[in-house]
Amino acid sequence: MQNRLVKNFIKNPAWAGQHCQTKYYITIRKKTCQEAVNQGTIASMRTLILETPKRTGSEVTIVGWAQTIRKHGKIAFMDIYDRSGVVQVVATSADTVKSASELEQRTAVKIVGTVKKRGEKYVNNNIATGEIEIEAEQIEIIAKADVLPFDMGGKDLKLELPTLLDYRSLSLKHESVLMIFHIQAALADAFRNSAKQLDCTEIFVPTISSGATEGGSEVFPIDYYGHKAFLTQSPQLYKQIMVGVFERVFTIAKAYRAEPSVTTRHLSEATQMDVEMGFIEKFEELLDALEIVGTSMIRQISESHAHILKHFGVEEPLVPKKVPRLTLRDAQGIIKERTGRDLSKENDLNPEDEKEICQWAKEEHKSDFITITHFPVKKRAFYTMPDPKDPEYSLSYDLLFRGLEILSGSQRIHNYDQLITAMKKKGVDPDNFGMYLMAFKYGMPPEGGFSFGLERLTMKVLELKNVREASLFPRDMERIDERLSLSKKAG
Amino acid sequence: MQNRLVKNFIKNPAWAGQHCQTKYYITIRKKTCQEAVNQGTIASMRTLILETPKRTGSEVTIVGWAQTIRKHGKIAFMDIYDRSGVVQVVATSADTVKSASELEQRTAVKIVGTVKKRGEKYVNNNIATGEIEIEAEQIEIIAKADVLPFDMGGKDLKLELPTLLDYRSLSLKHESVLMIFHIQAALADAFRNSAKQLDCTEIFVPTISSGATEGGSEVFPIDYYGHKAFLTQSPQLYKQIMVGVFERVFTIAKAYRAEPSVTTRHLSEATQMDVEMGFIEKFEELLDALEIVGTSMIRQISESHAHILKHFGVEEPLVPKKVPRLTLRDAQGIIKERTGRDLSKENDLNPEDEKEICQWAKEEHKSDFITITHFPVKKRAFYTMPDPKDPEYSLSYDLLFRGLEILSGSQRIHNYDQLITAMKKKGVDPDNFGMYLMAFKYGMPPEGGFSFGLERLTMKVLELKNVREASLFPRDMERIDERLSLSKKAG
Repeated sequence: MQNRLVKNFIKNPAWAGQHCQTKYYITIRKKTCQEAVNQGTIASMRTLILETPKRTGSEVTIVGWAQTIRKHGKIAFMDIYDRSGVVQVVATSADTVKSASELEQRTAVKIVGTVKKRGEKYVNNNIATGEIEIEAEQIEIIAKADVLPFDMGGKDLKLELPTLLDYRSLSLKHESVLMIFHIQAALADAFRNSAKQLDCTEIFVPTISSGATEGGSEVFPIDYYGHKAFLTQSPQLYKQIMVGVFERVFTIAKAYRAEPSVTTRHLSEATQMDVEMGFIEKFEELLDALEIVGTSMIRQISESHAHILKHFGVEEPLVPKKVPRLTLRDAQGIIKERTGRDLSKENDLNPEDEKEICQWAKEEHKSDFITITHFPVKKRAFYTMPDPKDPEYSLSYDLLFRGLEILSGSQRIHNYDQLITAMKKKGVDPDNFGMYLMAFKYGMPPEGGFSFGLERLTMKVLELKNVREASLFPRDMERIDERLSLSKKAG
Repeated sequence: MQNRLVKNFIKNPAWAGQHCQTKYYITIRKKTCQEAVNQGTIASMRTLILETPKRTGSEVTIVGWAQTIRKHGKIAFMDIYDRSGVVQVVATSADTVKSASELEQRTAVKIVGTVKKRGEKYVNNNIATGEIEIEAEQIEIIAKADVLPFDMGGKDLKLELPTLLDYRSLSLKHESVLMIFHIQAALADAFRNSAKQLDCTEIFVPTISSGATEGGSEVFPIDYYGHKAFLTQSPQLYKQIMVGVFERVFTIAKAYRAEPSVTTRHLSEATQMDVEMGFIEKFEELLDALEIVGTSMIRQISESHAHILKHFGVEEPLVPKKVPRLTLRDAQGIIKERTGRDLSKENDLNPEDEKEICQWAKEEHKSDFITITHFPVKKRAFYTMPDPKDPEYSLSYDLLFRGLEILSGSQRIHNYDQLITAMKKKGVDPDNFGMYLMAFKYGMPPEGGFSFGLERLTMKVLELKNVREASLFPRDMERIDERLSLSKKAG
């Protein structure tokens, strides 16, 4: 028996343990693991679950976790999943039925069994392995699981957010939760691909700084060898410096905001995906670039992860050829026409306005995206370039997607003297920004950039209600993994 | 004239502003910018410098920075570079010679001129554009540069490290410095590619934690909304949790170490590239995986960035088919044979030992890599799995490359009770690790992983003397951009 398996294994170059293509959970990775195969060292008797239908009639060994266990008299069914997908295992012998019925959900198991075609009326089209099942010959526990504190067997995990987060290390294992983070990984990958297409070089910038990034007081102080330092509020200043080095850069970096408020869309520690581009000839080049990156990310993941969007009941995003663009004032005018609300004194769009103008873009331009430009100078950070035609407004922009701002950015002030003046006007002390300012002394070309919030984007793509659902281990005023109010270290 | 340019531009689908393939600085990106082209929105009159040889006989507009300016009587030569490469521009008219000789190095300029073939004896084979030069018709300053505080024109930047870092925003612009960070970007990319080939899912983990990651006192405390928190010393605990979710994960994450010492190989804020894999069947699977990732990263960048390795005078790395493996004790035995040093009481290799054993691997196995395994349990973190055959030693490993440890890792303890016992033995309080421990209650399979230091790896690939040279903006005991001893915020 072992020999037959080994022969099968050797005959099949797309051998089990390293086979990369999956369908149920992940469809984006289409490469084979040729490199690992060539090295030929990582061998395994294991068959990935997604591969089991190809082994119909043969004996296979699978490993994974028990998702559900159902006993019906002298027979037991288990759904077993691994990183590639889920499969039904059936136990019919006295031994295997006993083993199966003693398993807790989420126990890690190794199962040896035979892959059998299901009868036509038992085919399950919801899963990639739905045409087969595995008849267990041997069930071995790899690692036990405690009794679960709540049901993990249903299609959705019906928990209140605080409970979901209190049990994060467990709740993340639920399919409807882990799928969120497959989307997140795919978004990050799509971002990098798009940024590279713009010829940006990846940079790794620091998160410990001696001054507050953009002025403002919402920073976390650090004790740095007895000196006072801060966590950066964004990679902004460093990516700007790097324009003077590489012209075009991108980075995925942490951003820390000590906002003393609890909302559904703020995190104290978030992940930003940033681009910055130099030698731009006009403002519109930046709008073109952000729209290319934004729409191509969404297009890529809605193609590669359609099954996850479907699981979350999310409509396919409307990605237009040309994203509609409005100035803030024009957007406010349209909102006034549609709702009667006079926003002409407002310097930003509030959440209700964002929803309304996105509704307009959807109705008028069949677009889930809209770019809003020219926010008042006083609403934006000191480095934002004023519009030369109307210096009360700035060459700034937000990209909205389905009613939410997912990106923000601007053309920057690139002239050293103008930058110093702008800092002073905003009450920012140039003496705290020596390294940043140095970059503007040596030929900084016209430049600008933009930044996506990865968690916010993930949240919006899947229409989640709270950004905390889109962060593996969200940090906020009340929580670092455990609730701070319960923590021994509080105070 | 404009019209002819526009026509050329439209005829040429690989149009200037977005063309991605470069040779002089970057050779890894071979994709075209088809996506940007299809959207067809980012237009530019600009020709990237690397593209200019294809436009011989035509008028082009280039933008970039002046690297050197040389005046010879009635003629002036400039080396102008952009993100794609460098080209020689010659000024012959009275106007252009005057403009050229007034330029400071590193001024950002726009030059309109005609691409001309150089005479055979003037061809410069050191640069990709060496067969042509551009005869300037018009030189326009985009952004001025101050007089430089030191010479930036030579092949190397001859500065002491403190000065190099004091002027980081400027010194990074020097070719021999920015090349380091092209290598770094390529290493990160190669790491991600290799991790994806192992079927790992990318995760984004937090850096703010309520407890010290691995015990120990070398942590930076944060004031977190009035609570005491810490910067994580590594993504270790979170990547382990995520094995219970995705089986195989990778992350590029920040690691913070408040080491109160100044050495050539430690940074207070470093970038780690981490992999963690579950359902391993035996320890050797982990060794196979780390060697695949480690060697394929080095192989990829030494192929794609050979010109940079050459610039740094670095030999092509010796990448063996099979990386030699030794236990710590066996390695010490070999070192004793070669040098007479008795290390049998030592629980780790010191820098001198690492060099010696790498020399052995090079001589005996034609390999710049060697894997050292089985370090004593007392030298490794609490989560390290003891060797069942000899529990004084652990299932741990380091990968050495050219005399330096570039990777560390181990199989982990995956059993809940064993983990609690190990924590207590090391004086680590399990109560501070609630979220981590929860993951081990619900079917954690045998697992392990490894971690590369990105800056250390960059340093070693280019044989730099100090890891600070391989960090864009290095943080250490004495510096956050500016020297802390000079900072107003000190104390």
